[in-house]
Amino acid sequence: MGRVTERRRVLRIRDGRAEHRADTLVAEEPLEIRLNGEPLAVTMRTPGDDFALAAGFLVSEGVLGAAEELASIVYCAGATRDGSNTYNVVDVRLAEGVPVPESGLARNVYTTSSCGLCGKASLEAVRTTARRPIADDPAVRLTPEVLASLPERLRADQRVFDRTGGLHAAALFTERGELVDIREDVGRHNAVDKLVGRALQEGRLPLSGSVLLVSGRASFELAQKAVMAGIPVLAAVSAPSSLAVDLAAESGLTLVGFLRGASMNVYAGEHRVLLPTAAARG
Amino acid sequence: MGRVTERRRVLRIRDGRAEHRADTLVAEEPLEIRLNGEPLAVTMRTPGDDFALAAGFLVSEGVLGAAEELASIVYCAGATRDGSNTYNVVDVRLAEGVPVPESGLARNVYTTSSCGLCGKASLEAVRTTARRPIADDPAVRLTPEVLASLPERLRADQRVFDRTGGLHAAALFTERGELVDIREDVGRHNAVDKLVGRALQEGRLPLSGSVLLVSGRASFELAQKAVMAGIPVLAAVSAPSSLAVDLAAESGLTLVGFLRGASMNVYAGEHRVLLPTAAARG
Repeated sequence: MGRVTERRRVLRIRDGRAEHRADTLVAEEPLEIRLNGEPLAVTMRTPGDDFALAAGFLVSEGVLGAAEELASIVYCAGATRDGSNTYNVVDVRLAEGVPVPESGLARNVYTTSSCGLCGKASLEAVRTTARRPIADDPAVRLTPEVLASLPERLRADQRVFDRTGGLHAAALFTERGELVDIREDVGRHNAVDKLVGRALQEGRLPLSGSVLLVSGRASFELAQKAVMAGIPVLAAVSAPSSLAVDLAAESGLTLVGFLRGASMNVYAGEHRVLLPTAAARG
Repeated sequence: MGRVTERRRVLRIRDGRAEHRADTLVAEEPLEIRLNGEPLAVTMRTPGDDFALAAGFLVSEGVLGAAEELASIVYCAGATRDGSNTYNVVDVRLAEGVPVPESGLARNVYTTSSCGLCGKASLEAVRTTARRPIADDPAVRLTPEVLASLPERLRADQRVFDRTGGLHAAALFTERGELVDIREDVGRHNAVDKLVGRALQEGRLPLSGSVLLVSGRASFELAQKAVMAGIPVLAAVSAPSSLAVDLAAESGLTLVGFLRGASMNVYAGEHRVLLPTAAARG
């Protein structure tokens, strides 16, 4: 079974002096996700929460949408020459009647559109596979104060990062800023998939009324994962990309970037951000 | 033709005040890479240097190793319903006699090994596809002072980051710290592929004697790209992963992490780092 961190010997150079010491690194191992026995994707991830990762990946790809659509997830035995288990291959079985996507799933997400491969096609692909329009999720309303408090909560619970500096974190919060769940992984898309997969396993999908915070940037892929899981608010400590903003605007996702201290940029869905009446909205 | 940055309207909240203003974002668009006409992979990238990106991707995957193995790269026309060009699909033609890999290339890199899917298999896959052992590249020797000077050079030339905060950068240096090339992209693996692809196009592969600096962390994937391009030194501003260190140790790659100011950690290949005789090597 893999570990979240590993120890290695390192030559540390400081102030012109060099010395060997032990260092703690974030663990990275490949995970192969199989669907009904067929290889589907390989992701480089930090071991742990592998079933949640596989389930969340399939939510992001539009295959799974509710706990009852999932029959089972198991580690495949006999994956090595001597028959021992590497715990790096999982097989997801769908419940009877749940349609199995055709091969090339990962690519299909971007290319199922008839308009050729372009940003617009990527947006269209998400729209056609998303099950619940988050634009219809009117419930959540956030103050800038609550949003500003989230990164500190994330850092306080980001334990492995403290030791390795090498993990991305993703966390789910309520609209009042209460932490629901946090995951860390060497790949930021994996951290989000682990959050979403856990929610699916526990019957909490769609994640309406919740806020997803990521420690880094907001790419198209992360915005897609939020939309597919029914999360109405995505907040990022760093910059969003153009296509993430376009997807947010089109799908009704509230997208907040550069969330640092009391300052932030709202790129889309600003109707969910409650401004004090005294604040000028220019 | 895509652009490196795009403008969007944003609600900026600072010190309790909110105002609308224009913001510059890093552009993100899908790129489909075809090989001899067959779809191979889709990557979300910042438009620009697309031919270099495609060529570098194929170097990383072990398909291309020298300029003469590449026949041509073109944008596919007629990719949209109205026949116009999205400039988001490129087709790479290999020179006659260059073997075309079987389908599932991206996955094969991790799973061709007979020992099952595990970190060891990932290392073995790189060893069997790498063309030139970089352990045999004894020429390059770096002082800590030269290494320490690289991040500042990277930042000075990282122009788009200044405007968007949203790009990863990768740069190639000589062992004397002279900048050879720099690329920025919304995906850090793309930035490295663009560097490597440009080098292939200009007949500069293998990149022996050179140093690759990346603005973020050092994952297995980035270490793999360095090894496949024949780059003997990989330096990262942030943390490496366990598998990146293992690949570096096994392949003879010098891996430097947490390169900040005058301090750094050397995780593998420390024989290429020249320490002052006064410095204690504990």
